Amino acid sequence: MGSSYGKIFSISTFGESHGKAIGVVIEGCPAGVPFDETFIQQELSRRKPGQSKITTNRQEADEFEVLSGVFDGKTTGTPIALLIRNQDQRSKDYSHIADRYRPSHADYTYQQKYGLRDYRGGGRSSARETAARVAAGAVAKLFLKEYGITVQAYVSQAGALKLNKNYQELDLSLAETNIVRCPDQNMAEKMIELIDSVRKDRDTIGGVVSAVIKGTPAGLGEPVFDRLHAELGKAMLSINACKGFEYGSGFDGVSLRGSEHNDVFYTEDGKVKTQTNFSGGIQGGISNGEDIYFRAAFKPVATLMKDQESINEAGEKVTVSGKGRHDPCVVPRAVPIVEAMAALVLADFLLRNRCSQK
Amino acid sequence: MGSSYGKIFSISTFGESHGKAIGVVIEGCPAGVPFDETFIQQELSRRKPGQSKITTNRQEADEFEVLSGVFDGKTTGTPIALLIRNQDQRSKDYSHIADRYRPSHADYTYQQKYGLRDYRGGGRSSARETAARVAAGAVAKLFLKEYGITVQAYVSQAGALKLNKNYQELDLSLAETNIVRCPDQNMAEKMIELIDSVRKDRDTIGGVVSAVIKGTPAGLGEPVFDRLHAELGKAMLSINACKGFEYGSGFDGVSLRGSEHNDVFYTEDGKVKTQTNFSGGIQGGISNGEDIYFRAAFKPVATLMKDQESINEAGEKVTVSGKGRHDPCVVPRAVPIVEAMAALVLADFLLRNRCSQK
Amino acid sequence: MGSSYGKIFSISTFGESHGKAIGVVIEGCPAGVPFDETFIQQELSRRKPGQSKITTNRQEADEFEVLSGVFDGKTTGTPIALLIRNQDQRSKDYSHIADRYRPSHADYTYQQKYGLRDYRGGGRSSARETAARVAAGAVAKLFLKEYGITVQAYVSQAGALKLNKNYQELDLSLAETNIVRCPDQNMAEKMIELIDSVRKDRDTIGGVVSAVIKGTPAGLGEPVFDRLHAELGKAMLSINACKGFEYGSGFDGVSLRGSEHNDVFYTEDGKVKTQTNFSGGIQGGISNGEDIYFRAAFKPVATLMKDQESINEAGEKVTVSGKGRHDPCVVPRAVPIVEAMAALVLADFLLRNRCSQK
Amino acid sequence: MGSSYGKIFSISTFGESHGKAIGVVIEGCPAGVPFDETFIQQELSRRKPGQSKITTNRQEADEFEVLSGVFDGKTTGTPIALLIRNQDQRSKDYSHIADRYRPSHADYTYQQKYGLRDYRGGGRSSARETAARVAAGAVAKLFLKEYGITVQAYVSQAGALKLNKNYQELDLSLAETNIVRCPDQNMAEKMIELIDSVRKDRDTIGGVVSAVIKGTPAGLGEPVFDRLHAELGKAMLSINACKGFEYGSGFDGVSLRGSEHNDVFYTEDGKVKTQTNFSGGIQGGISNGEDIYFRAAFKPVATLMKDQESINEAGEKVTVSGKGRHDPCVVPRAVPIVEAMAALVLADFLLRNRCSQK
Repeated sequence: MGSSYGKIFSISTFGESHGKAIGVVIEGCPAGVPFDETFIQQELSRRKPGQSKITTNRQEADEFEVLSGVFDGKTTGTPIALLIRNQDQRSKDYSHIADRYRPSHADYTYQQKYGLRDYRGGGRSSARETAARVAAGAVAKLFLKEYGITVQAYVSQAGALKLNKNYQELDLSLAETNIVRCPDQNMAEKMIELIDSVRKDRDTIGGVVSAVIKGTPAGLGEPVFDRLHAELGKAMLSINACKGFEYGSGFDGVSLRGSEHNDVFYTEDGKVKTQTNFSGGIQGGISNGEDIYFRAAFKPVATLMKDQESINEAGEKVTVSGKGRHDPCVVPRAVPIVEAMAALVLADFLLRNRCSQK
Repeated sequence: MGSSYGKIFSISTFGESHGKAIGVVIEGCPAGVPFDETFIQQELSRRKPGQSKITTNRQEADEFEVLSGVFDGKTTGTPIALLIRNQDQRSKDYSHIADRYRPSHADYTYQQKYGLRDYRGGGRSSARETAARVAAGAVAKLFLKEYGITVQAYVSQAGALKLNKNYQELDLSLAETNIVRCPDQNMAEKMIELIDSVRKDRDTIGGVVSAVIKGTPAGLGEPVFDRLHAELGKAMLSINACKGFEYGSGFDGVSLRGSEHNDVFYTEDGKVKTQTNFSGGIQGGISNGEDIYFRAAFKPVATLMKDQESINEAGEKVTVSGKGRHDPCVVPRAVPIVEAMAALVLADFLLRNRCSQK
Repeated sequence: MGSSYGKIFSISTFGESHGKAIGVVIEGCPAGVPFDETFIQQELSRRKPGQSKITTNRQEADEFEVLSGVFDGKTTGTPIALLIRNQDQRSKDYSHIADRYRPSHADYTYQQKYGLRDYRGGGRSSARETAARVAAGAVAKLFLKEYGITVQAYVSQAGALKLNKNYQELDLSLAETNIVRCPDQNMAEKMIELIDSVRKDRDTIGGVVSAVIKGTPAGLGEPVFDRLHAELGKAMLSINACKGFEYGSGFDGVSLRGSEHNDVFYTEDGKVKTQTNFSGGIQGGISNGEDIYFRAAFKPVATLMKDQESINEAGEKVTVSGKGRHDPCVVPRAVPIVEAMAALVLADFLLRNRCSQK
Repeated sequence: MGSSYGKIFSISTFGESHGKAIGVVIEGCPAGVPFDETFIQQELSRRKPGQSKITTNRQEADEFEVLSGVFDGKTTGTPIALLIRNQDQRSKDYSHIADRYRPSHADYTYQQKYGLRDYRGGGRSSARETAARVAAGAVAKLFLKEYGITVQAYVSQAGALKLNKNYQELDLSLAETNIVRCPDQNMAEKMIELIDSVRKDRDTIGGVVSAVIKGTPAGLGEPVFDRLHAELGKAMLSINACKGFEYGSGFDGVSLRGSEHNDVFYTEDGKVKTQTNFSGGIQGGISNGEDIYFRAAFKPVATLMKDQESINEAGEKVTVSGKGRHDPCVVPRAVPIVEAMAALVLADFLLRNRCSQK
């Protein structure tokens, strides 16, 4: 349980870090969506390992194969299965942790939950699974494109280096021009330097990804549990290493007074708008047509390239050696994952909203 | 859609602020749980309006009636329906907003989504719906009690007044001894003063609720989308006015290095523990047996007791007058709601985990 | 689990035979549907006990109260809760079976499943629960009415008395003109006589309900598991005492050759039709626009008004005395239940189909 | 939507008749189940085409590949993805029907539903999809084996040739000893002769598959909608060409009186049993520990090897020529599919029942 997501536009992912393949079955994508394979591959390449000096050097081409659901270049309305074969597995890198629990990993909890585990590269708990999400998210983006909805994410914090500009002050198109995916070139350089230095220390560091969704019509989101931001929150928190989520004014908004925080409505060219957007484009859990924006916090990667103290399955004190290949900081590669999950949420709610009125 | 929550231990709430009643149907509560009606009523009383000078003065006894699912003092395994009649409705208080949108409320988004709306007190979008959650959460607590799992929340921030102590430094049993539900008496007094002063200004202010879950066994939570913290996040963000969620080290953790942030395992009396708990009791989305803790941010209430500028359904500029009865700050009453939602999540995952092993 | 039904237009029923009330929460009914309370009451009256000499003489007015989801005479898109109080409970009629299992009832299986049971009138297993379905089905019918879709059922067999005419040869409007709900007056009289005679024998007998759905557009039903007829089948088989379901040519169709059974397409006034309709209006699990028709078999009621041999909870041989009040044959009252369940299935698929195309 | 089935032990199938592959993702299979690949392959071989003179001569090895969810010969509790590549596709066999609707096929309904369709071999509507179900069902059987639950199906009717013995009078182990899968050798020969003769006529014929489930504990099934037989019914009716379902006494039971039909309880060696089993092992929707048995009716295959009249997409009268390769009668190959779907239902309810009691 728990490997499926979405109510109408829904996905079911499968695969382990060092198994034969990972993949995803997308159900509920409407028929007739132009299926742009080049775009899907581009999205996968944004996430793939080994793309720069500040990411893991595991080598995976992350090429995908379409197994079903597409005919004559369009979706058919039936399940779309996408398959990505694992290539650079080196499972023996992991034999040394077969009987021991890496600190702050899922080794111990999986063992407790299931009574056994695929210890190779973390098995199912590996962030490798997110490639399947990115592939599915790319399909969701193709669907959203038909409605003029776009999702863009970027790195707004790495370690203590925080970009103190809101998204309106930034040229988000610059995010993809540097390897850390921060749209402020000056800050990007500092972040790259920081992450590279952390990497050289054989250590890791956390970060924050911010995202903006534009073009959403009013009406997406369902009261009372399936609020748009609640699903966005769940979607982000389901990404490996994510520790927090906030949208609109977020945690900082709590210090404001209502009279400062309320977004006043006005009309422009017959369209209802708000003068401010502390609501983050969502009111009562439903989109109001303004930009939706949010932030997701990611902890420092648990795997370090140095020895750490831990215990084994017998409960004895052992040393866990830093092997395998890992990112010193997840946020550069988390950017396309955040976008993918947001796109999946939006696609689902766009369809759900078709049932709101008689 | 969207008024149901949970996969096995699941709830379905109904009712509007000024309709006849609100209520909840609980499905999937196992048979044989002692059904303590007094406890459920106490929980409802912790949330009910009019309980102190810093809450709304709407008067609702919030007495509930058990319609089904209980026999001879125990749950029967069949749906438990709980009903709470609305009493102090004063719907005419709302006729003045029938055709206009209150800023930062759900008036506009509901109208856009459904093409019509029950404008009385916000209808379904009102936080009155959360009484049904508290009733259901109380049943979840009764089930969790059988397993020694407890949930406790408290106010850790009101406006800019932030309690800079972590939960281990506090005596959480003190939270219920003051009307703001902050376990630090000194801070509690300041918070009460602040909220009261904001209320006198006919304004509102936000806050943060922190929560701690103790006694959870290892193994709760499902990879990869239904991680325990992802569902906790969704559950919190589904509460009215919630803008952010973080667990364990949260947003602050991003600045740490992995070598500082990793929680080292050790064994004590044959039990696996961690030396620190930046993980917040959850690793790989699954509980590890340590305390689970998280924070939820709440924005300032949108309804102000003063006039605000807005538009009506025709898009014309109008004034929205502050009427009705509202809380100057939601967090004191949000405490039992946060606990209820957390208890519902835990109850569901406790049952889901029964299916993990052969 | 198991007390909810439907994916988008979904219901959750609650209540026991001799508890305080039964009821239903309807989620996913679109906003804007005219809410005709008189019609809903009429539907409930078609199902209510005590309506004729061939039904149980339990007296229940089955008046319902709307608790939520309706405003200004229209549905609001939020959950619609309907409540029916139990009146004529006579729970003490059942104290004699508290510790024993009635043959072919759910007494034993509930006890095994839950470890305890509400033995009064069968508790949750009682067909009294179907009143909630009829109320919900009436709302579904109001929604379907907006699309010109109608559902009509009738009794086509009582005991061995089988109406050997297909629905096209009958004037279905006559079904409601007699107490057994058979549209052939001659056969109706025989059926009434049979059932009354069985009743006098303190025995019971089975029957078959047939149903026809008209006005369905092509496209309803989802491949591959949620075929329209598969959901109709589940819906019917979920009704108390239902033992079989067939649609279109059904069991008899197996003896035909493909060349006889295939329905040839033709066009009339630009509309695609079929010359025969062995398909029962469904091809590949999806409606084709022709009439949908099916049959549901109901076993003889298990409760007899005479003594039967059985065992008690200790496994000892005991006598179960025939008390309580029960129908000698369920099919007359099953007619509105069959219609209600069919309407719920259709309403759900009508909404699901809104998501088929881009 | 509609390509997933099951609540806890759930499957999601994908793939078209003439696409690259078909497959299934199994979610919710508990960890620790011995994964017998040989057995799974055997099950697939029982369903595969080209196995005898009375089945289609399409050649598919139906070899499967395990992509995930298995480690060291056991299930890991994470999604199990199974892939079957299509080999003998001959898609050009189908170009002649690209613009026309085969009678009683899903061509027209898919076109209406989705606005486009993969016409090659029926695309998603092809019974080729059921190979994925058989693979998943084999995994379910491996899980059920751990609990001593077995499922066996056999052909009890082909055309008008009906086996008038109930399952207790038959040696079910003989079913797999002949190509029609009927355990009565005499009847089997007649059936084979009939089907072969129908095949030579370039025509098709229907049939009935019966099934028996042994070893089920009391308590499986959920009131009130998810009754065990209601899910079995849906599962069977979701199989291509299935037109009817009945369990226990079924349609014939309606003519009996309650006093004949009731199953009297007795105790043997401390175990509760019933003297008769008209209930088919299910009372109130929940298993009582007796054998569960049911029958599923299958219509004659729609594709004939001769010309038929029909219409094209423009609504013009056309001839549809019999090409492709098809079964003259589906029931011999439906036997393992019926078993697979029944096993999936049982596996799901076995897990669901773990949550019935505190």
